[in-house]
Amino acid sequence: MLMLRAVPRRRVRLPPPPLPPHRSSSRTDIGPGAPNPGGGGGGGRVVPVLAALLGLGAALSYGERRRRAAHAAAAPPSYPRYTREEVGRHRSPKERIWVTHGTDVFDVTDFVELHPGGPDKILLAAGGALEPFWALYAVHGEPHVLELLRQYKVGELSPDEAPPAPNAQDPFAGDPPRHPGLRVNSQKPFNAEPPAELLAERFLTPNELFFTRNHLPVPAVEPGSYRLRVDGPGGRTLSLSLDELRNRFPKHEVTATLQCAGNRRSEMSRVRPVKGLSWDIGAISTARWGGARLRDVLLHAGFPEERGDEWHVCFEGLDADPGGAPYGASIPYGRALSPVADVLLAYEMNGTELPRDHGFPVRVVVPGVVGARSVKWLRRVTVSPAESPSHWQQNDYKGFSPCVDWDTVDYRTAPAIQELPVQSAVTQPRPGAAVPPGELTVKGYAWSGGGREVVRVDVSVDGGRTWNVARLAGDKAPLGRAWAWALWELTVPVTAGTELEIVCKAVDNSYNVQPDSVAPIWNLRGVLSNAWHRVRVSVQG
Amino acid sequence: MLMLRAVPRRRVRLPPPPLPPHRSSSRTDIGPGAPNPGGGGGGGRVVPVLAALLGLGAALSYGERRRRAAHAAAAPPSYPRYTREEVGRHRSPKERIWVTHGTDVFDVTDFVELHPGGPDKILLAAGGALEPFWALYAVHGEPHVLELLRQYKVGELSPDEAPPAPNAQDPFAGDPPRHPGLRVNSQKPFNAEPPAELLAERFLTPNELFFTRNHLPVPAVEPGSYRLRVDGPGGRTLSLSLDELRNRFPKHEVTATLQCAGNRRSEMSRVRPVKGLSWDIGAISTARWGGARLRDVLLHAGFPEERGDEWHVCFEGLDADPGGAPYGASIPYGRALSPVADVLLAYEMNGTELPRDHGFPVRVVVPGVVGARSVKWLRRVTVSPAESPSHWQQNDYKGFSPCVDWDTVDYRTAPAIQELPVQSAVTQPRPGAAVPPGELTVKGYAWSGGGREVVRVDVSVDGGRTWNVARLAGDKAPLGRAWAWALWELTVPVTAGTELEIVCKAVDNSYNVQPDSVAPIWNLRGVLSNAWHRVRVSVQG
Repeated sequence: MLMLRAVPRRRVRLPPPPLPPHRSSSRTDIGPGAPNPGGGGGGGRVVPVLAALLGLGAALSYGERRRRAAHAAAAPPSYPRYTREEVGRHRSPKERIWVTHGTDVFDVTDFVELHPGGPDKILLAAGGALEPFWALYAVHGEPHVLELLRQYKVGELSPDEAPPAPNAQDPFAGDPPRHPGLRVNSQKPFNAEPPAELLAERFLTPNELFFTRNHLPVPAVEPGSYRLRVDGPGGRTLSLSLDELRNRFPKHEVTATLQCAGNRRSEMSRVRPVKGLSWDIGAISTARWGGARLRDVLLHAGFPEERGDEWHVCFEGLDADPGGAPYGASIPYGRALSPVADVLLAYEMNGTELPRDHGFPVRVVVPGVVGARSVKWLRRVTVSPAESPSHWQQNDYKGFSPCVDWDTVDYRTAPAIQELPVQSAVTQPRPGAAVPPGELTVKGYAWSGGGREVVRVDVSVDGGRTWNVARLAGDKAPLGRAWAWALWELTVPVTAGTELEIVCKAVDNSYNVQPDSVAPIWNLRGVLSNAWHRVRVSVQG
Repeated sequence: MLMLRAVPRRRVRLPPPPLPPHRSSSRTDIGPGAPNPGGGGGGGRVVPVLAALLGLGAALSYGERRRRAAHAAAAPPSYPRYTREEVGRHRSPKERIWVTHGTDVFDVTDFVELHPGGPDKILLAAGGALEPFWALYAVHGEPHVLELLRQYKVGELSPDEAPPAPNAQDPFAGDPPRHPGLRVNSQKPFNAEPPAELLAERFLTPNELFFTRNHLPVPAVEPGSYRLRVDGPGGRTLSLSLDELRNRFPKHEVTATLQCAGNRRSEMSRVRPVKGLSWDIGAISTARWGGARLRDVLLHAGFPEERGDEWHVCFEGLDADPGGAPYGASIPYGRALSPVADVLLAYEMNGTELPRDHGFPVRVVVPGVVGARSVKWLRRVTVSPAESPSHWQQNDYKGFSPCVDWDTVDYRTAPAIQELPVQSAVTQPRPGAAVPPGELTVKGYAWSGGGREVVRVDVSVDGGRTWNVARLAGDKAPLGRAWAWALWELTVPVTAGTELEIVCKAVDNSYNVQPDSVAPIWNLRGVLSNAWHRVRVSVQG
């Protein structure tokens, strides 16, 4: 469905990136035989249309490849040498756009507009290596892609290129390497989001691009000696190795979106300054998580099915501040024990072991709840009549009225954020883009907390004066367990030379909606920023 | 707490109406020793302050009473006779304001401004009988109240006054008598709301004032022959008499707010016309419901605890259209069976049997869900893989984008409303009021669907430019089971001669907020009208 757009005439079309998975066909409102709330756009079953586009793309790319290969035959056989730093200076058309693959250096300036995935995608690698991006999109592994690239070769990397040695004094020196495509908001601790251009390209966010929100250095955990401590009732303590967690409890899999409370904070800070990392729209990602159900582990530890609403399940991470205080958070006991809340002690993310940045070897995943409660590098689980005493539970991650400032704030007066409100954002086009006239495809994501399904996304291209209903892609989830986002798109005619203000707003199945504007939900910590998302673009004349 | 306002100098102060019940002291954010998010307003424990005010009120009213009683001694001993119709013409200061009590007629024009409960409250009885209002506020039963009233006597009712005979041809002829204080939006079928002035005066809405949303004539049910039919699994049918429902199943009590999907529709129709009754802010009320749990009845009938998410429990009422089609609705099976969703087959409302307008002898009460699913005069319960086939489930009570009109609407594309979004409204002062300078107390209600607790109400008196946090009154409910509204109030200084635009917006514990404006949530049926509530008033010069 995400491929149902007109093929731009001036672009080579390679096979497109994979579609979001449609594990269930019960969500049929994007097909021709089912209700289409938007009324607009072409129909067609996803698979045949995709196959047709793949064929068309291959034919186009083949012809283009032949023409360019003939031209490349005249290129010189030896090349100058460059350092990675020198390559890194070539990031814009003005300085030319260079990329590396293996030890080869390419000037792809003239290819950018021809890139089948769109110029915005190839520019993510400008000044650096192609491999981390190609690893995400298997289509680049085909031989004709390298053949196509070869004609743009302008040099080779110096043979003495090596990564810089880590500083042993730096508490963050042991942090893992990261994907260069991430937009870094803070290096130490590492906080980064996927580029908006890639955010809604796939239903499941690749692990390498999944937004990372670390509060402290990444712990180095030796999986063989890892133990999860569960303080059971009556003073008994359960100590689980990774193998025990994997083998003693049924593996449960859940596709869930995690979102940071600070997602879209940058919009809030434009109203008035706030304290916090300046997240754009990418502090949200979706993965297929696998692990033991927290419920099963707690029942195994001897806890009862119900224990009153005032009890809490508290988590501690292996990440700790210099004084030894670990990251911590808690969730209500009822959610932890609920057979339908799907709370996991996850050891898998999209079919592989957890990456270090995402909590290796074990993290909590609390679907429908602010990411801050999904504690990574989990070391201990306790049950308590009080919420976690952690700073991040008590004195952070809470919402306040716009009239509350740092002189008047009293963190005891607001509840710790658990379920998040309904949210959506435009991922394509990007703010300030100059889009071609004709048809414009607007894409984005929408999600709501608490398992509430997104039932509609309204999109405007005139600042909210008139609206269209976007087409939704995503799974039909059981009622109250819609843990994953919906991706959406809308194709609208646009007139050359005009300015557009694209706006989106989502509705969940409790018919909650997003607020119109940011100022009335402004809060001193810049959390819960879920006003209509607005993107201004111009249409080329 | 609701009495914490300055005593106006020019008003007699009688004992105030009862406070909302505070069954639990765990919600302490209105006391002085607990966090006060608003930071403003006086504190004080509720009970001592109330006692002090009661004493003060009694002393003030005593002095006033003595002065006026001396004046009344000179009044003539015999009076002219009037019909009720003649009395009914005296509803404004221009024609003088008359009321009746028993067979006596009073001209209370000069007392209106002295009325301890406020002039707006006594005006609700203008042109009619005092008794229905006095019945709601026990303070009027004290002897000095009648003594006070006697001085305003101007006549007596004609002895041949009798109610008009009902029209036997009228299908609505059997409808019950109603309280004259209700604001009637439709007489046949009867649809009416409590006056906003009284809406937030009490935590539990008196049965007589509870908003009434009838789709058809009120059935006349003989309780002795009433049977509730429950179609059990395997073709077995359960038939329950009222006594069996009362005696075979534990009585369960729940305090729950019901709200019509069309509450505040009048604001939406000011944007563009919509189809539907023109509800003001009063299609919402709160009662203490008593009855059997639907869950218990369904388990007794042989249904299992769980049956997949695609099943539904369908209800039929005894109210039927001329073709015999009953009112009907359904809720998801999971909610019906949930041990914490508190769905009732109610036979009691605020401690008495259900009034006829509210479903006598048995109605469904689905807390946290749109009122339309709480089927009244319940005759039949079925379990089905499909939602109720009723018009009101399939082709009404659904939300659409503002871009959908009657030419393009497809009811299959939107989910039937179940949980409602977060809501709030200002009940005092009323739009257009001229309020005294000094301190203004703003009052209102706030509520959210799905058992989500209201955690904050922001109030502005400058149209939303700046905000204050209101004080909340209400019970602390178990997590996810906050079925009842929160009443709130805020006292702010106001300057003589200014114009105020009062605005309120609520936040629930999923941090969902209300949208800023009406137009972007406009829909052709005028449902789900939950934008910020705005009330313009002037401050007397």
